[in-house]
Amino acid sequence: MKRLHVVYILIVAIFLVYAIFMYYEGASSEIRVQEGLSGEIDETYVMVTFQAGIEYWKSVLKGFEDAASKLNVSVEYRGSTQYDVQEQITVLEQVIAKKPAGIALTAIDPDALTPSINKAVDAGIPVVLFDSGASGSKAYSFLATDNYNAGVTAAHKMAELVNGRGKVGVVTLPNQLNHQQRTAGFKDTIAAHYPQMEVVAVRDGKGDQIVSREAALAIMREHPDVAGLFNTDAVGGVGVGEAVWLERKTGQVRVIGFDTDKGTLDMIKDGLISATLAQGTWNMGYWSLQFLFHLHHGIVSPAAGNRTGVSPLPVQVDTGVTVVTLENVDDYYAK
Amino acid sequence: MKRLHVVYILIVAIFLVYAIFMYYEGASSEIRVQEGLSGEIDETYVMVTFQAGIEYWKSVLKGFEDAASKLNVSVEYRGSTQYDVQEQITVLEQVIAKKPAGIALTAIDPDALTPSINKAVDAGIPVVLFDSGASGSKAYSFLATDNYNAGVTAAHKMAELVNGRGKVGVVTLPNQLNHQQRTAGFKDTIAAHYPQMEVVAVRDGKGDQIVSREAALAIMREHPDVAGLFNTDAVGGVGVGEAVWLERKTGQVRVIGFDTDKGTLDMIKDGLISATLAQGTWNMGYWSLQFLFHLHHGIVSPAAGNRTGVSPLPVQVDTGVTVVTLENVDDYYAK
Repeated sequence: MKRLHVVYILIVAIFLVYAIFMYYEGASSEIRVQEGLSGEIDETYVMVTFQAGIEYWKSVLKGFEDAASKLNVSVEYRGSTQYDVQEQITVLEQVIAKKPAGIALTAIDPDALTPSINKAVDAGIPVVLFDSGASGSKAYSFLATDNYNAGVTAAHKMAELVNGRGKVGVVTLPNQLNHQQRTAGFKDTIAAHYPQMEVVAVRDGKGDQIVSREAALAIMREHPDVAGLFNTDAVGGVGVGEAVWLERKTGQVRVIGFDTDKGTLDMIKDGLISATLAQGTWNMGYWSLQFLFHLHHGIVSPAAGNRTGVSPLPVQVDTGVTVVTLENVDDYYAK
Repeated sequence: MKRLHVVYILIVAIFLVYAIFMYYEGASSEIRVQEGLSGEIDETYVMVTFQAGIEYWKSVLKGFEDAASKLNVSVEYRGSTQYDVQEQITVLEQVIAKKPAGIALTAIDPDALTPSINKAVDAGIPVVLFDSGASGSKAYSFLATDNYNAGVTAAHKMAELVNGRGKVGVVTLPNQLNHQQRTAGFKDTIAAHYPQMEVVAVRDGKGDQIVSREAALAIMREHPDVAGLFNTDAVGGVGVGEAVWLERKTGQVRVIGFDTDKGTLDMIKDGLISATLAQGTWNMGYWSLQFLFHLHHGIVSPAAGNRTGVSPLPVQVDTGVTVVTLENVDDYYAK
């Protein structure tokens, strides 16, 4: 009987040691949880777009969601269904009313959206902008493609395609700032780095497939020896590819497009378009959420405090472009 | 005796339940650890500078360390002691040899450092650049002040100081790209936004206190009604402040400097300099470490994979500037 007592006491003692061990183990892993970057699941960050259904935003949202999953926070996606300023303002105002932990917004119209953006920031809701900015607003940061740099990338790729020599043309929207910047980056880079190349024509494609086709045909007729065409928008590239096919110059006139619409990708497969520039949409979403998380948790430059005019975060982020060619085109089809 | 047995069995049962509870509790907190952003303490990221002892890097290092502490990883700080290209290359090569988890580098000379940067990237060590870049290298990102935007900020502040009217001058280093960009941002903004202001002179201060003083004196003598002077570098601002004092024009000619050297801050206290631009150094360090952590852990754009030419991360980050005036100057003295 005594022996049995000893066994019982031993068992109890072992459990006691185990319990103490688990207690400290638990406490120490609890500390590790607090040290890592992690939020609360009821912390909701909202991404707001316009034309909410279009393909282009999907990868932004994927980045936004991926960051939320890493940081253990929640996300919502809202947006106007149409390309409609008033509708986007209404959606944004509804989002603000729910006092989310942060808002990532792409602004359909910078001036029209600025009062609502400022209202959110004044109410203590962090706002960052992606893709389309509103430079006069109180938003903390702007994450987007630097369009001038995108033009620089296009120029280097074009030089590679035409072996650094020959005439090239541009089909663009000459009245829109982002397209002016893409064209300027392209022209400046050709002028500075490729003495045997020349930009002989810049024509208006109006962001329209048929107008862009006609613009490309006009360039090829004026300059029968043109070696390459850069189309700066998402829609016109297919028109430029058609023009090259109509002129029976496939592979002879090299085309660079913009964005990764299905028509453009299909033409890369067919060899009518040699390359297109994919924007860093996943990065826009991922780092927008990271920035909002850091603002919400006050993990920002200690110099910032609560003062105005101070940058708690990087103010502008160039999310970069990727050159898509036959080699990697399959990765860019919607899955 | 039977009763005692029951008590023992009860105690054992309670411990068993407790042990099972702790096991699942422990397991679930372990999962939370893995979900948040957190690395390993033996994961070492290295920040490499030149002139390692200067004040300017301290805040970058603070940001680098703050991010490491949030992410539970380790950091080291290395740098050449002198302003010496060969010494920095040697330091960088020593760092590469230790195969750290990532390297944040400010390049004293882009061309000279590029082979070592590329060697690191080719060996699978993530590299990002801060403050001074190397645009031709394989580094994944560049985090720094956008100098054109800094000039824009200076112009708006100058307009505020002179009430939007009058002649202004610039003292700069006309042969250095970053200073050309600061001057261009300043001039373009005055021209575009302030019709009653005019940039009447741009003079070379050679980044030297005495030369900058003489340049400022020359501007004030040529244009006795000049209302403001913008000095684009860290050292010359004090010279410009001295020139204003020598001409007995304190408070009459408003001076904007650059960076937060002690001499500049002292002159803000004395009213000889009205404002200076503090660079987002903490943000350079903080987000450099974040980017390296994301590269090391492969948390990057899914489109990136292992292909070349793809941007796994934002390629360029403008860390912004903060306007420092009498109101917030105390926050900028070294602590």
